[in-house]
Amino acid sequence: MIVHLRPNISQVQAEKLAHESQAILIRKNRNYVLVTSSKVQELPTVLSEAAMEYWAFPNDLQLGSRSYHSSTRAINLGSITIGGDSMNTVLMTGPCSVESEEQLESSAQLCVELGIKVLRGGAYKPRTSPYSFQGLGLEGLRLLAKMRDRYDLQIISEVRDATHVEAVIEHVDIIQIGAKAMYDQGILRRCGQVRKPVLIKRGFGSTLQEFVQAAEFVLSGGNEQVILCERGIRTFETNTRFTLDLCGVAYLKANCNLPVVLDPSHAMGHAYGVPDLTRACVALGVDGLLIESHPDPRKALSDAAQQLDYDSFRSLYKSLDPVAASVGRTIV
Amino acid sequence: MIVHLRPNISQVQAEKLAHESQAILIRKNRNYVLVTSSKVQELPTVLSEAAMEYWAFPNDLQLGSRSYHSSTRAINLGSITIGGDSMNTVLMTGPCSVESEEQLESSAQLCVELGIKVLRGGAYKPRTSPYSFQGLGLEGLRLLAKMRDRYDLQIISEVRDATHVEAVIEHVDIIQIGAKAMYDQGILRRCGQVRKPVLIKRGFGSTLQEFVQAAEFVLSGGNEQVILCERGIRTFETNTRFTLDLCGVAYLKANCNLPVVLDPSHAMGHAYGVPDLTRACVALGVDGLLIESHPDPRKALSDAAQQLDYDSFRSLYKSLDPVAASVGRTIV
Amino acid sequence: MIVHLRPNISQVQAEKLAHESQAILIRKNRNYVLVTSSKVQELPTVLSEAAMEYWAFPNDLQLGSRSYHSSTRAINLGSITIGGDSMNTVLMTGPCSVESEEQLESSAQLCVELGIKVLRGGAYKPRTSPYSFQGLGLEGLRLLAKMRDRYDLQIISEVRDATHVEAVIEHVDIIQIGAKAMYDQGILRRCGQVRKPVLIKRGFGSTLQEFVQAAEFVLSGGNEQVILCERGIRTFETNTRFTLDLCGVAYLKANCNLPVVLDPSHAMGHAYGVPDLTRACVALGVDGLLIESHPDPRKALSDAAQQLDYDSFRSLYKSLDPVAASVGRTIV
Amino acid sequence: MIVHLRPNISQVQAEKLAHESQAILIRKNRNYVLVTSSKVQELPTVLSEAAMEYWAFPNDLQLGSRSYHSSTRAINLGSITIGGDSMNTVLMTGPCSVESEEQLESSAQLCVELGIKVLRGGAYKPRTSPYSFQGLGLEGLRLLAKMRDRYDLQIISEVRDATHVEAVIEHVDIIQIGAKAMYDQGILRRCGQVRKPVLIKRGFGSTLQEFVQAAEFVLSGGNEQVILCERGIRTFETNTRFTLDLCGVAYLKANCNLPVVLDPSHAMGHAYGVPDLTRACVALGVDGLLIESHPDPRKALSDAAQQLDYDSFRSLYKSLDPVAASVGRTIV
Repeated sequence: MIVHLRPNISQVQAEKLAHESQAILIRKNRNYVLVTSSKVQELPTVLSEAAMEYWAFPNDLQLGSRSYHSSTRAINLGSITIGGDSMNTVLMTGPCSVESEEQLESSAQLCVELGIKVLRGGAYKPRTSPYSFQGLGLEGLRLLAKMRDRYDLQIISEVRDATHVEAVIEHVDIIQIGAKAMYDQGILRRCGQVRKPVLIKRGFGSTLQEFVQAAEFVLSGGNEQVILCERGIRTFETNTRFTLDLCGVAYLKANCNLPVVLDPSHAMGHAYGVPDLTRACVALGVDGLLIESHPDPRKALSDAAQQLDYDSFRSLYKSLDPVAASVGRTIV
Repeated sequence: MIVHLRPNISQVQAEKLAHESQAILIRKNRNYVLVTSSKVQELPTVLSEAAMEYWAFPNDLQLGSRSYHSSTRAINLGSITIGGDSMNTVLMTGPCSVESEEQLESSAQLCVELGIKVLRGGAYKPRTSPYSFQGLGLEGLRLLAKMRDRYDLQIISEVRDATHVEAVIEHVDIIQIGAKAMYDQGILRRCGQVRKPVLIKRGFGSTLQEFVQAAEFVLSGGNEQVILCERGIRTFETNTRFTLDLCGVAYLKANCNLPVVLDPSHAMGHAYGVPDLTRACVALGVDGLLIESHPDPRKALSDAAQQLDYDSFRSLYKSLDPVAASVGRTIV
Repeated sequence: MIVHLRPNISQVQAEKLAHESQAILIRKNRNYVLVTSSKVQELPTVLSEAAMEYWAFPNDLQLGSRSYHSSTRAINLGSITIGGDSMNTVLMTGPCSVESEEQLESSAQLCVELGIKVLRGGAYKPRTSPYSFQGLGLEGLRLLAKMRDRYDLQIISEVRDATHVEAVIEHVDIIQIGAKAMYDQGILRRCGQVRKPVLIKRGFGSTLQEFVQAAEFVLSGGNEQVILCERGIRTFETNTRFTLDLCGVAYLKANCNLPVVLDPSHAMGHAYGVPDLTRACVALGVDGLLIESHPDPRKALSDAAQQLDYDSFRSLYKSLDPVAASVGRTIV
Repeated sequence: MIVHLRPNISQVQAEKLAHESQAILIRKNRNYVLVTSSKVQELPTVLSEAAMEYWAFPNDLQLGSRSYHSSTRAINLGSITIGGDSMNTVLMTGPCSVESEEQLESSAQLCVELGIKVLRGGAYKPRTSPYSFQGLGLEGLRLLAKMRDRYDLQIISEVRDATHVEAVIEHVDIIQIGAKAMYDQGILRRCGQVRKPVLIKRGFGSTLQEFVQAAEFVLSGGNEQVILCERGIRTFETNTRFTLDLCGVAYLKANCNLPVVLDPSHAMGHAYGVPDLTRACVALGVDGLLIESHPDPRKALSDAAQQLDYDSFRSLYKSLDPVAASVGRTIV
């Protein structure tokens, strides 16, 4: 249950009420909001006087629910908006892994060339084997930050685990929580305290309910700038790397008030299917897209098969405007 | 391996060669084609003189493979074409189950109103419980045939099991093999002998490889008019009925020469997500769509949650032309 | 809802009541039983006078439910019993496919040597490719019947589709409905009319609920001799062929009154894991086991990797008695 | 590839060789071991003189592979051994969450009563919702440590994320890495540096290959005391919480040299199936078992449905000795 407390409630009182009702306390501007478990269906007596307005829910999708806040939340990424009433489909591209300054600069230049505002690149790679390339780490973050300053781009990069969450927060504009870290409370709770956009990728073995509840960790920490990213779930099918769950996206669009970004590159795992899937995502009406591109995919140090070369990316990019227009959206 | 025999080979000789090479024999116009297991990678000596041309394959996707026949096969559905170089996206709609003449006639009239050429309706329903409505059976087929004659529509309906395959073949224009019957050789082999289009739905627990091999049963029987239909696979996610596998469709488009139709209604299982998913499918560049609609979904005897009412369907229909145009396709 | 009608109700009356309450009518000895959808939770008024006893259910597991009939049903397989209060774990072995009389006779002799009463062998193989070995068909059934007569064994073989269901019914002692045919109503309904044991394999993409509902098709047809067989479900894991669902078996044991047989060979897909899994199944307290064995697995025409050679099978067999005894069961 | 360097190689030389061959360096007693990616199939020239012995592998299961070290590694848990040639099946029990000293003491006393040496209890709970009970944290660890001292038990508890890994390492005897943290390199790498046993639970969406590679992170850090724990994977089946993957365990036993522990409580999610599954696991020949028990499961603050009450646990415990004996094992 979400309870908006009356404006005259002091911080001390709010904390006491939160404790008595086993609720999480959030300060929203000058007001206080309590969130209890969704098992609470009737307003607790202890809150009856202090409550101004309240909402009960069928499950723990609460702050992110459209029955609490019906329109999609707007999040500012530099000069552009994702979600809200923007009707934007925000493109984000760049290599799977930051490999060198030269490589990353070519990506930044591609963004500038096409008018793309968000550059992605992995610095801390969540590889499943200790014997694979693990990413450049802090050095990768610094290269990303350099490109932001040099080319006026927004930077998104992934936190792999809680040990380097501060470094990522410091260097990026959008904090990405990777699919394998979706349940990581060390990261989620820390991201609830910052005031930067957080993009959470759905774990490939995670239900939609768990996915939106991961967002609730950040939202209930007080950070309202949360973006959801579907990137494919693991199924029995092996001809593709994962299975992009567009039915799940339709569910999120209908039930959740957070912007939704799609990552067809990781889902497909093969460059050849990415253009078709990207156009499908645009027509579905998603708020953004993460597409991997690389100056020379054959030489990529990770996920070589799924990254688009620049010519393919340019050609894909050109095809998106009419699709977006056909559903009343704009590619930015 | 597919082997095209020289034109001068007689039927007797062809049968002998088929027997000696453990191959399936297909007559194609006046020529003969042999198909062996794909484990055969070198032309068998016994065929060395009779072979005109041959193709080896990495697996048993052979007659349906783009490396055998690179362009999408064209199939005529009455006055319209699906696949080939048509760039058509063929709409098929109608109720989940045929329930009455009045209900079906309203569906037929909706098709006529919108210019849709293919009417769907289930007569033999593959329900998982014996205690549910099982469909009208032969009476349902007769109602469908009546609508074809009255409104000049193409009829598609499902074979549930081999016991009534003849009745379905007799009454419909497109024979649908349902997801639960995808492995049914009694149906598949019989459909290989007829000269009507066959639409095979992917089993919800079936791999893409098994799916295309189901088509190979029909193709190797001599019937080249096979359409594949993706309708969602079963995954761990339960907020939607199934998970529409668009990555799999991207795979099929790249590797298989058969037209691909999508059924977002069964995948989603809820009417609210169907319009978004349908637009996504159109932008993906599929050859056709099966969308369930019903004059009053709340009263439907099966799959009530997922059928669109007519106003929603009209509204969806109107939105599709611009999406199709944006990817160079036409809704028919 | 299951309704037992009063003993004085005539067939004509029973049929009228079945029609009026949209129920399936079963004759049980001299009495009549009606089964409606489980959505019926209150006794229909039309049945209030004729009903002697009735049971409501939370779902369509009705005739097979322990809340209707609490003890496991006993089924006679020749001289032995499966289920009931027998505490038997019935072994069934033989090759994946019947390949020749010599091969099958060696299997029959292995059964005799070890005191195993049930010989399995596939005649109509549900291969997923038309280019693989498809089984000997009727010839395979005849060889199985010959072994029954020669060695006094019970024979189990699979129906692949409805086109040859009569041939299988005629030749075998236990009719096996394969995993790929679990939804096949042509087979299920026909098996409801016969008076022979039917073993239904769970589809690898089928829920437990659908599995028990497949049994309801047979039970509601009037055949009470149904055995359930878990043989592995399809998951994301590919190092093993399928995933044997022992949690599901625990569910079936607790909720369903039908004997449960396990098939670890198909689940594992590799001979090396079969002995460990078999012992696990015995300790779980299952009613029977289907284990594939072959005189020379390397030469098997289907499923070569998963069949045990005879020495491995003998060694496994010897290890089972103590495990069975440790849970109060007997291997027969 | 694993390369054992000659005994006369100094640390400086070893580090140089590791750098040149892009290998991880492990000190083993006084000798050095290098591990490269398994893509390296031929001994690198740079190592040709320094190498004493080396092993190539088909994938990144290397240090944990039976083709490197054929027998199961032995790990000492206080006075008892898990794995090695012990033939022990080590029982570990206790509540899902540590809730109070009284509750935990009753668990410790149950262990003492039955001769069980390992007490489990969750302090940092990886709940999927921020609005659920999150565990007692450090206070929970302290209660566990108190029970160890008071009752001479080994303590196992879970690290949820990297922020509290030091606290867990300090207080427990066996560090548990939970299913949701299986990919967490912050935890895995830290555990590679300690000299305490580490039990890694398989992620419910993780392949066996990823599972053993998680162990490689710890092993390649120099900690050889790694235990694998299968606790159920996520599949389409919803009548049970997860699906216990015994086929996967058979695979691990055959291919991996680490002891394997099973957790049927989390897999089943319902107490009623746990006894049957536990006996199945014992007969499969596993090295240990994690079974949840609680003085009053109905009042448990987490996972109430799956915890056994003490009478059920005692009754289960008594049934295990004969099953273990039947496969040559001993319950400890």
